[in-house]
Amino acid sequence: MNEVRVNGKRLWERIEELGRIGAVLGPNGERGCARLALTDEDRQGRDLVVSWMTDLGLDVSIDGIGNVVAAMTGRDPSAAPVMVGSHIDTVRTGGRFDGNLGVLGGLEVIETLLALPADLRPRRGVSVAFFTDEEGARFAPDMLGSLVYVGAMSVEDALDVLDADGVRLGDELNAIGYAGSMPCPAADAPHAYVELHVEQGPVLEDSGVTIGVVTGVQGISWTELTITGQSAHAGTTPMRLRHDPGYVAAAINVGVRELASEIGGSQVATVGRCEFRPNLVNVVPSTVTMTVDLRNTDEDQLRRAEAGFAALCNDLAASEGVTIERRTLARFEPVSFDDQTVDLVESTAQRLGFSTLRMPSGAGHDAQMLARICPTAMVFVPSVNGLSHNIAEYTSPGDVTAGADVLLNVVLALANQP
Amino acid sequence: MNEVRVNGKRLWERIEELGRIGAVLGPNGERGCARLALTDEDRQGRDLVVSWMTDLGLDVSIDGIGNVVAAMTGRDPSAAPVMVGSHIDTVRTGGRFDGNLGVLGGLEVIETLLALPADLRPRRGVSVAFFTDEEGARFAPDMLGSLVYVGAMSVEDALDVLDADGVRLGDELNAIGYAGSMPCPAADAPHAYVELHVEQGPVLEDSGVTIGVVTGVQGISWTELTITGQSAHAGTTPMRLRHDPGYVAAAINVGVRELASEIGGSQVATVGRCEFRPNLVNVVPSTVTMTVDLRNTDEDQLRRAEAGFAALCNDLAASEGVTIERRTLARFEPVSFDDQTVDLVESTAQRLGFSTLRMPSGAGHDAQMLARICPTAMVFVPSVNGLSHNIAEYTSPGDVTAGADVLLNVVLALANQP
Repeated sequence: MNEVRVNGKRLWERIEELGRIGAVLGPNGERGCARLALTDEDRQGRDLVVSWMTDLGLDVSIDGIGNVVAAMTGRDPSAAPVMVGSHIDTVRTGGRFDGNLGVLGGLEVIETLLALPADLRPRRGVSVAFFTDEEGARFAPDMLGSLVYVGAMSVEDALDVLDADGVRLGDELNAIGYAGSMPCPAADAPHAYVELHVEQGPVLEDSGVTIGVVTGVQGISWTELTITGQSAHAGTTPMRLRHDPGYVAAAINVGVRELASEIGGSQVATVGRCEFRPNLVNVVPSTVTMTVDLRNTDEDQLRRAEAGFAALCNDLAASEGVTIERRTLARFEPVSFDDQTVDLVESTAQRLGFSTLRMPSGAGHDAQMLARICPTAMVFVPSVNGLSHNIAEYTSPGDVTAGADVLLNVVLALANQP
Repeated sequence: MNEVRVNGKRLWERIEELGRIGAVLGPNGERGCARLALTDEDRQGRDLVVSWMTDLGLDVSIDGIGNVVAAMTGRDPSAAPVMVGSHIDTVRTGGRFDGNLGVLGGLEVIETLLALPADLRPRRGVSVAFFTDEEGARFAPDMLGSLVYVGAMSVEDALDVLDADGVRLGDELNAIGYAGSMPCPAADAPHAYVELHVEQGPVLEDSGVTIGVVTGVQGISWTELTITGQSAHAGTTPMRLRHDPGYVAAAINVGVRELASEIGGSQVATVGRCEFRPNLVNVVPSTVTMTVDLRNTDEDQLRRAEAGFAALCNDLAASEGVTIERRTLARFEPVSFDDQTVDLVESTAQRLGFSTLRMPSGAGHDAQMLARICPTAMVFVPSVNGLSHNIAEYTSPGDVTAGADVLLNVVLALANQP
């Protein structure tokens, strides 16, 4: 059987062209992107992608939160379409692939399907979407557009979100001309949703694998700790009389590493923030603020990690004579993608001759929102050195094409389902 | 035998009066001091103390670095005098006792001796000194005035020291009118030097003891570490692929605590500074800067601690795959005070009915410089809650008087030595 394949060169050229809008050049030739949501750069990026959609004759619709959906019709106009997509906003020091690949890869899938002989065109329509403010780098929360798309946040609430400068999301959406008229949440759920994305981590590269078959998104538990002890002179205070919040913070950092190792599997634990006060060489600190980021694909295991972490804090507070205030910054349960759709991604990639690895996503994606309303899966391709949210983010042309080929064939199979 | 005693009320009133210059009031009634070296507040403080010296008819001399020495003559004018003293500069958020107690206590000792019947006046003269810039809070290094006094730094080099704003020490010394004409280093060493000081730590209070018999000053080893790993996404980077400088910093903090416990004795280990970059909740840090402060009264044990610390760094750098740059910020060998003078402090305090504890000083003092040129000892009195370099620094009137009484009787014994 001859498989249908995308035009990898055309896809790569679109990634390059979109990447020139808001381009950020690095000292070593890195080419990153800064297209924060609803800025003028975001508008220019949107205009370019919409022009490509329109050139293909797609039906482009924009909803009340600025999500853009472009649809090609299938042989059966009454059948729910298969949706692909992602986002085109970036973080301030972002790359050209995160999000953009899923949108432009989806556009490439549609252009390829449009070129097929009429009898090979799928039964269902295929639409490609880009969702507003996935990064959350300007307006919180992240994945805002897809959250509204699936009805989990009202348009009104989303429009009233303010950025750090007090600027209202709705005003910026109007200013860039992307406050659309389509109802939101969408009236009808897609038949299925598939998102192509760069891994943003080192696992595929480390394993020498081309296609990541994403089984779901990790649950996230973020805690901020404020540890208060007794500031003291580093020379005159014997060890036994200390109440050192810096030592406690360190023991927690070491402890959650051990906890992650004990629990194993997908469990990760990260201390990303840590601030000593007064932060002087010869003073035992008075207060330390730190964060602990725990993630697992399994809710029970994540709760086990949280319980172990809480016990660690209580034990250390008692033994060192410090107080620990805990504040939950974020808590999301894990999301599992649809088994059949995940299997379809895996079997399709293998049929096309690619090596595969089943893996969870450690980062959040629009797909986890769409999973609330339809069968959903994701396709990952490798990130060089595991870098993302970094202007050095890079995925090779061959891997980009491989991912788009898998997306194409998965979409074709889904779109021909009854 | 009736012991001679100071006038505790007069001493306390002088502490209060000097403390009103550069006073810093806290929200809970704390009364601290900010008299940074060679500022206008320092000048006012110097003028007040010099006026008291002059009122007592003492011979006041000022040397080329601004050290002030006031002398009463003894029965034998050819005998080297006993010197007492300390400093009257403070840190920016200092207290009223640190340094000031040693100077005003010394003045009180002299005033008491001057009031004795002629046949009880000591054979040797007694002088009281305050040394320039002991705190080093404005001009580095600390103990600068006494360092120059003993000839370990030239006056010229000291006058050329700049503060953080680029202001030259010599210019400031001229501006406040304290560039004196006495030669420096001093031509003749004192017969002995004794310094009364607040403990600045919690040991005496914790032990319920009034008088600390100071046996020496701890050696100090300060190291700054810059640990460089690989910044990575907290969600997408498995534990086994991490190179986390934050984890390494934490393991070093926990490791030096264990090292201090293993070595025991006077060994202390402190991580006072720790800074994560980029310091974000969901990013494994790229770089962490931290300091490690190791102190011991025994040079061999301090070297053992340094070696253990270096091995810890090397092991962790290898196991986690990070690089660690080490920079020495300070290194001083321990100082041992004169055995006979230390014994004299102890026996005198006990004869006066005070509880005593032999202890090292964890902080640096002018006494450690004077120890280079004459037999030296120190007397400590308790610091409430161990606080110092803090506007809440406090020592009770009873303990202040006890310390001055010990100083008086030690000085009297030394001044009658052949």
